[in-house]
Amino acid sequence: MKFVLLLAAFAADPTSAFTAGLLKGPSISPSSSRKSFKLNAAADGVANGTDKKKIIVLGGDGFCGWPTSLYLSDQGHDVVIVDNLSRRNIDTELGCDSLTPIQPPGVRVSAWKEVSGKDMKFVNLDVAKEYDLLVQLIKDEKPDSIVHFAEQRAAPYSMKNSKTKRYTVDNNVSGSNNLCCAVIDSEIDAHIVHLGTMGVYGYGTSGGEIPEGYIDIILPGGREANILHPAYPGSVYHATKCLDALLWQFYQKNDQLRITDLHQGIVWGTNTPQTIKDERLVNRFDYDGDYGTVLNRFLMQGAMGVPLTVYGTGGQTRGFIHITDTARCIEIAINNPPKTGERVEIFNQIAETRRVRDVAKLVADQTGVEVNLLPNPRQEAAENELEVSNRKFCNLGLDPITLDAALFDEVTEVVNKYKYRCDPTKILPASFWNKKRAEECASLDPSSVKIKV
Amino acid sequence: MKFVLLLAAFAADPTSAFTAGLLKGPSISPSSSRKSFKLNAAADGVANGTDKKKIIVLGGDGFCGWPTSLYLSDQGHDVVIVDNLSRRNIDTELGCDSLTPIQPPGVRVSAWKEVSGKDMKFVNLDVAKEYDLLVQLIKDEKPDSIVHFAEQRAAPYSMKNSKTKRYTVDNNVSGSNNLCCAVIDSEIDAHIVHLGTMGVYGYGTSGGEIPEGYIDIILPGGREANILHPAYPGSVYHATKCLDALLWQFYQKNDQLRITDLHQGIVWGTNTPQTIKDERLVNRFDYDGDYGTVLNRFLMQGAMGVPLTVYGTGGQTRGFIHITDTARCIEIAINNPPKTGERVEIFNQIAETRRVRDVAKLVADQTGVEVNLLPNPRQEAAENELEVSNRKFCNLGLDPITLDAALFDEVTEVVNKYKYRCDPTKILPASFWNKKRAEECASLDPSSVKIKV
Repeated sequence: MKFVLLLAAFAADPTSAFTAGLLKGPSISPSSSRKSFKLNAAADGVANGTDKKKIIVLGGDGFCGWPTSLYLSDQGHDVVIVDNLSRRNIDTELGCDSLTPIQPPGVRVSAWKEVSGKDMKFVNLDVAKEYDLLVQLIKDEKPDSIVHFAEQRAAPYSMKNSKTKRYTVDNNVSGSNNLCCAVIDSEIDAHIVHLGTMGVYGYGTSGGEIPEGYIDIILPGGREANILHPAYPGSVYHATKCLDALLWQFYQKNDQLRITDLHQGIVWGTNTPQTIKDERLVNRFDYDGDYGTVLNRFLMQGAMGVPLTVYGTGGQTRGFIHITDTARCIEIAINNPPKTGERVEIFNQIAETRRVRDVAKLVADQTGVEVNLLPNPRQEAAENELEVSNRKFCNLGLDPITLDAALFDEVTEVVNKYKYRCDPTKILPASFWNKKRAEECASLDPSSVKIKV
Repeated sequence: MKFVLLLAAFAADPTSAFTAGLLKGPSISPSSSRKSFKLNAAADGVANGTDKKKIIVLGGDGFCGWPTSLYLSDQGHDVVIVDNLSRRNIDTELGCDSLTPIQPPGVRVSAWKEVSGKDMKFVNLDVAKEYDLLVQLIKDEKPDSIVHFAEQRAAPYSMKNSKTKRYTVDNNVSGSNNLCCAVIDSEIDAHIVHLGTMGVYGYGTSGGEIPEGYIDIILPGGREANILHPAYPGSVYHATKCLDALLWQFYQKNDQLRITDLHQGIVWGTNTPQTIKDERLVNRFDYDGDYGTVLNRFLMQGAMGVPLTVYGTGGQTRGFIHITDTARCIEIAINNPPKTGERVEIFNQIAETRRVRDVAKLVADQTGVEVNLLPNPRQEAAENELEVSNRKFCNLGLDPITLDAALFDEVTEVVNKYKYRCDPTKILPASFWNKKRAEECASLDPSSVKIKV
């Protein structure tokens, strides 16, 4: 209900709310009916010239990277996007495509210039492989901050087969290590802001609130310590984020790098106040079993009239965050770097936690589609509790967007608009965690999914 | 003193001691004077046909890998050595060479056949890069165990520059990940035995005995847990072993791989009862600032008559193990695999802990050379305590060789024999942990070291 009150306050006097700093980021304006809430582009994008920063966004062409780049540019920062377009190439490999017709980087950047008057640079560079170019770029651009999204980010893809497991490890770990080395070599004291995942904590060790990165423990003999939360990843992808965390810890300690690691929940939503300014700016929307994130998959399935694909009992509790908040959190992190010599700063980047079957029910109730319990392709506990602290971001001004059927309509509109682009054979899970899970899922027939016309 | 008593027992009746299983591994026979203790090759190598295993040794051409391969072969196992000879190539890159004239793999394997009558296969293969060949090898050989030494193993080399940092991460992490994937793909349930390091624990968090891999903790709210010991690596090399540990944890959990991780201390000594059987079997001996391990460097310096190079105050306490015990521990680990489904087995593979300056004093007292306190090239605490459990190996029959001046003579003999091969300009540290440490070490002049003739 907090969300609704917030909207009311904003609707009453948006300007004063922004001025007072009570509300930040995207504005959500209620219109005639609950069904037609939509993102309000016009009210957003207040540039703040005093804090203008040079920011390199590694992986700035992706699902989180693109809207974040636009948001940062809109806020007045000078943004350089770096991407090797690996995500688009993986679409080619999988025979999938974003449901939304995303434009090539050149078109995106030109459209943004046209719409906003702001320049963004795009550089095609492989962070994991083109080390010398990365160093030269940092030397040339002298960024204040480097946002690091340049990792293979789908757990299912990372578990598909040995080729994708190896690619995920090689790409993600080499990329993060290269970034640290490049910052040292370039002698530019850039603040690194890395997208991690809530999955580093694992989902089997709760029983108390998960703190932000570090946990107080008592060692044998009664010694007290505050350590990186034990890592218990559930996929190769999640494992790479745990490996990253140790690299950050090491390079901070050895070379005094300034690093922030963001343990993000599952992202939902498509567009942001920036991406909806022009169709050429549209964000990527993944609906396939490998890259589609859970709530977005459900929303798409609901709009298509196909049953929701819940894995197992749907008893998994997960953290969620709206794509618009992803971008806002990144800027908050950029504006609050750790001081030189301080340990790695870690934020939990989530708005709330929800159980997957409850999320499915929300969507099913709204759309009238069935909930289909599939055998779980993942090696994970059937049910888990999850309580997570997100105080740091809230203390820094984030008032997170939580799941609300109103906001679902944004996604539903997008899906309805582009449903002609959907290949329904890509909806069911296509990656299985191990032999046993693959056997349990053997009966799943990708061609059985038919879209209601 | 325990060590001396052990020798006496063995001298009295070596056969019965072996038969009774009270003594295992290398025999040390006292001769006329303390100075002339030497490794007794003839009494070792009791094959045990009943437990004969097929073992692939990845990195079997290296300092630990080669004597381990010979030991396992001597014990009657069927050994396949895999190595891409990267260590020899790094010698080329550094303009260094093993003090001992190690022979090419082909010569080594032939000499072993001649001396022992036993066959060993040698395969030149890059574990980090030639994945398909690795899978095929495992399918073809159907090993019971795979020993994994195939990692860049020098902390200083891993900190030399961004190229060596990146090589160390890429090679070590990809290699370990490839190995897990290859075992899964090959569908051969081989037990993986990995050489880790004591350095995964870090040297700054003691205050109690370091347990073997896992530590009991109390979480907030009084919840008890037993977790992987927090990782706090002190170099990129050590960091890679921490990353490995998370990969082992993940693949054990997800794919039920059987894995043993050995957290080894600093290895000293050169030859083993197997390598001294023929000069063509001689083990590698590194004396340079990058690859020379601390005690071996001191022993070499003592024999050469040059001052011992102690870094900082020499207050660092470290774990030590003799090369002969490395090989014995590996076999014990091979013979005691975790059961399918059991978590990763972790042993601390050390004989004892010693403070570096105390080790230097032992050598200085014996050789009469000076101890030279150099600025520390490493980013580390000047002084640390270290108390480590090694109960598991001891319970499984290891009676570890501890530092004893008697055994130093083995190394001294080797050094004296090959000192003509030494390049004294390679003795001082050549890698610095960060800019500050490099500046502090700027006065070190490699060409100032002169060998007494």
